[in-house]
Amino acid sequence: MKKLLTAVLLLPFMANSQVQDDATMIKKLSDEILRNGRAHELLYQLTKQIGGRLAGSPQSYKAEEWGRITLEKMGADKVYLQECKVPRWVRGGKDEAIITAVDATKTSRGLDVLALGNSLGNGKPVEAEVIAIADFDELEKRKAEVKGKIVFYNAGFDPTNVKPFISYGQTGIYRRTGASRAAKYGAVGILIRSMTESVANDPHTGSMSYNDSFPKIPALAAGPRDADQLWDLSKRSSVKMAITTYGHFLPDTIGHNVIGELKGSEFPDRIITIGGHLDSWDVNEGAHDDGAGVVHTIEVMRALKAIGYKPRHTIRFVLFANEENGMRGGNKYAEEAKAKGEKHVFALESDEGGFTPRGFGVTADKAQLAKIRSWMPLLEPYGTGEISEGGGGADINPLNKTFGIPIAGFLPDPQRYFDIHHARSDVFENVNKRELLLGAVNMAGLIYLIDKYGL
Amino acid sequence: MKKLLTAVLLLPFMANSQVQDDATMIKKLSDEILRNGRAHELLYQLTKQIGGRLAGSPQSYKAEEWGRITLEKMGADKVYLQECKVPRWVRGGKDEAIITAVDATKTSRGLDVLALGNSLGNGKPVEAEVIAIADFDELEKRKAEVKGKIVFYNAGFDPTNVKPFISYGQTGIYRRTGASRAAKYGAVGILIRSMTESVANDPHTGSMSYNDSFPKIPALAAGPRDADQLWDLSKRSSVKMAITTYGHFLPDTIGHNVIGELKGSEFPDRIITIGGHLDSWDVNEGAHDDGAGVVHTIEVMRALKAIGYKPRHTIRFVLFANEENGMRGGNKYAEEAKAKGEKHVFALESDEGGFTPRGFGVTADKAQLAKIRSWMPLLEPYGTGEISEGGGGADINPLNKTFGIPIAGFLPDPQRYFDIHHARSDVFENVNKRELLLGAVNMAGLIYLIDKYGL
Repeated sequence: MKKLLTAVLLLPFMANSQVQDDATMIKKLSDEILRNGRAHELLYQLTKQIGGRLAGSPQSYKAEEWGRITLEKMGADKVYLQECKVPRWVRGGKDEAIITAVDATKTSRGLDVLALGNSLGNGKPVEAEVIAIADFDELEKRKAEVKGKIVFYNAGFDPTNVKPFISYGQTGIYRRTGASRAAKYGAVGILIRSMTESVANDPHTGSMSYNDSFPKIPALAAGPRDADQLWDLSKRSSVKMAITTYGHFLPDTIGHNVIGELKGSEFPDRIITIGGHLDSWDVNEGAHDDGAGVVHTIEVMRALKAIGYKPRHTIRFVLFANEENGMRGGNKYAEEAKAKGEKHVFALESDEGGFTPRGFGVTADKAQLAKIRSWMPLLEPYGTGEISEGGGGADINPLNKTFGIPIAGFLPDPQRYFDIHHARSDVFENVNKRELLLGAVNMAGLIYLIDKYGL
Repeated sequence: MKKLLTAVLLLPFMANSQVQDDATMIKKLSDEILRNGRAHELLYQLTKQIGGRLAGSPQSYKAEEWGRITLEKMGADKVYLQECKVPRWVRGGKDEAIITAVDATKTSRGLDVLALGNSLGNGKPVEAEVIAIADFDELEKRKAEVKGKIVFYNAGFDPTNVKPFISYGQTGIYRRTGASRAAKYGAVGILIRSMTESVANDPHTGSMSYNDSFPKIPALAAGPRDADQLWDLSKRSSVKMAITTYGHFLPDTIGHNVIGELKGSEFPDRIITIGGHLDSWDVNEGAHDDGAGVVHTIEVMRALKAIGYKPRHTIRFVLFANEENGMRGGNKYAEEAKAKGEKHVFALESDEGGFTPRGFGVTADKAQLAKIRSWMPLLEPYGTGEISEGGGGADINPLNKTFGIPIAGFLPDPQRYFDIHHARSDVFENVNKRELLLGAVNMAGLIYLIDKYGL
């Protein structure tokens, strides 16, 4: 009741009865999801019965079929697949890195490593001396020493960043571009410190790409504890490393965005999109990344139907293809929307995990932002009070670029995300049922408000 | 910077330079804790090297000694023990409950159960028919049927409560008082559904007490999946149950609050208290409950010292004894404070786990509440924006009752708390390092502001 009063005070442009109606409707959605939510059970199916589902893999097609059937079962008015070309990268074997101290001890041991996604390897060991580098500045200073060596980038997260996504923004560049920047100076391979602050030693993979001007050298990520030890060892002794990777591309193949629709009753031609991506890395179950976003999306649709809500706009529930190593699904969705002259009004993505809700990151103009902020007292009781400026999602950013429409990303609490992000530990067991369902509650609430009031 | 601007706008009674100073100081505390924090490592010691530490147990004395040494090592000006009498309940054996369907199948199986804390059992099986009861209303209606039976209370959490502590408030009464309410009508034992919404089947123990007017019958908690099955089975068939528990009290013994102090530079006689409780249930490591509160408390002290902060008030860092099954530590602390004529100004407790920070629950008058709320823009960047009215902690509530002083409880996100609360799964592995450290950051920030500005 106190929250409602706050809502009334903060929503001066809305009549009290409207605020009451909206509060009642959002409570209905919340009760439906918390009482009868299927998201957790659907996530079990996607993670345990299908598993890792990188673009073009056999599991990716199983996931598409599962998505199609599930959207139908959960009550979409219409379900269809939207074809796109996707890359087909395969890991090809068990990635290895063995380090040997070049000192009297000759200590030798294997590190826990994963080849970076899209990196290439021919299965033959590449053996060389390690040059341990803190950051690109040091690489530039020591470029004359790099030739013939394996560059070890030990760029870790800055623990004083309260928001881990800031750390990811600062260090992700080593994963994405570190190989070619080292190859430019003659390096024969790279090993990066995994993008995480986890206390565990799991290595974290993720997308990289090569600059065609330089040799395409193998690239791996080491677990953070192994990275610590290698860093310390390299300060005491020369270190040799033998790395073996098998990554390669098969020919591009076909993937699909899986799309369910609830038809708009008033504005059937004006489209609101909500989605997550169906693909995941090969080494885990893609439970938080982005199984959570997929089942959030489906749950929002199920709940809107279950409470008998008739949307004014057409709402599209999209399970995007190939976010992880190509972004082809999101790009295709915006391209087709443009080609068909569709009218899009808003898009929301969930791709930061299934953790307890905190807010939304919104890319919109000032008036739109103010409008969304004014609704927050209605969602605060369910966890999302914070609206930060900027945000969306890799799969819906193209919609914003193409149409200039406002987009938003669901922001769950980020503290545990990089413990599991692209690591073997991104499994069903690490998703909490209530946290997952509450994400869907808040997303459903925002979609309801946007559908009702527009932006 | 945007947060700072907000702070400036919302703190009209403070000069901008003050707000800047405070923001800088809190950032210093945050950087110190996130970079050099010892809370996670200390929690490892308390949980893995000592373990479960119910009042009066050998581990409880190890924990006291650890607390004393740790507070000294971490830089307290003075450390001392405050003696109190504590109850000495022991589980005494492996609790059992075996159910048998009284139908053609005669299906029989054991449930995963734990005797409730303080409950009594003599190690001999008590065998009787089960009467499955939804709530106390049903108990009253069916009281004539209860005699000679084992009452199974299936009162579960209401999943539509977004805040699980509301559900705990609604159902905790079955654990605390269900045995005597059933014994009043002749029941020979009770089994409750565990106080949790977890998808796992772990049983959750916790404190109960008997009404001396009625027989002291055995009392257990079943895992929630077992409770579901027993409920369903009891609708289809008569069910017999054999329960065996061994709980008993040894004579009251001696326990201690472990207290560290930083001496106030301006008001050495005015005391701010911050604490958590050192005891835990016997069946787990007491990692969230309340190892987290203990290491939060020590970390706040360490960080204040590490950045060279000289408190104006005397700050007491208190590791309370015997919260779980007696509250003797918290009561003793307030009693002695009164007997000695101490002047207390504020107390803060952490006893809701080591999860990501959300806010504080505050029991104070309107002006004090408004003052604390006005500081929140300074803490919001670290996770705690929410100030809810009411709150404190079992160990500091007596201070509020005795002196009428304002008290507060740290509020981490509550969604995972009842998954592990009083269950075997409350172990070190289920505490996230960053979430734990951020709790200490926000507590340190609040203590700093209260020490600087008073209430």
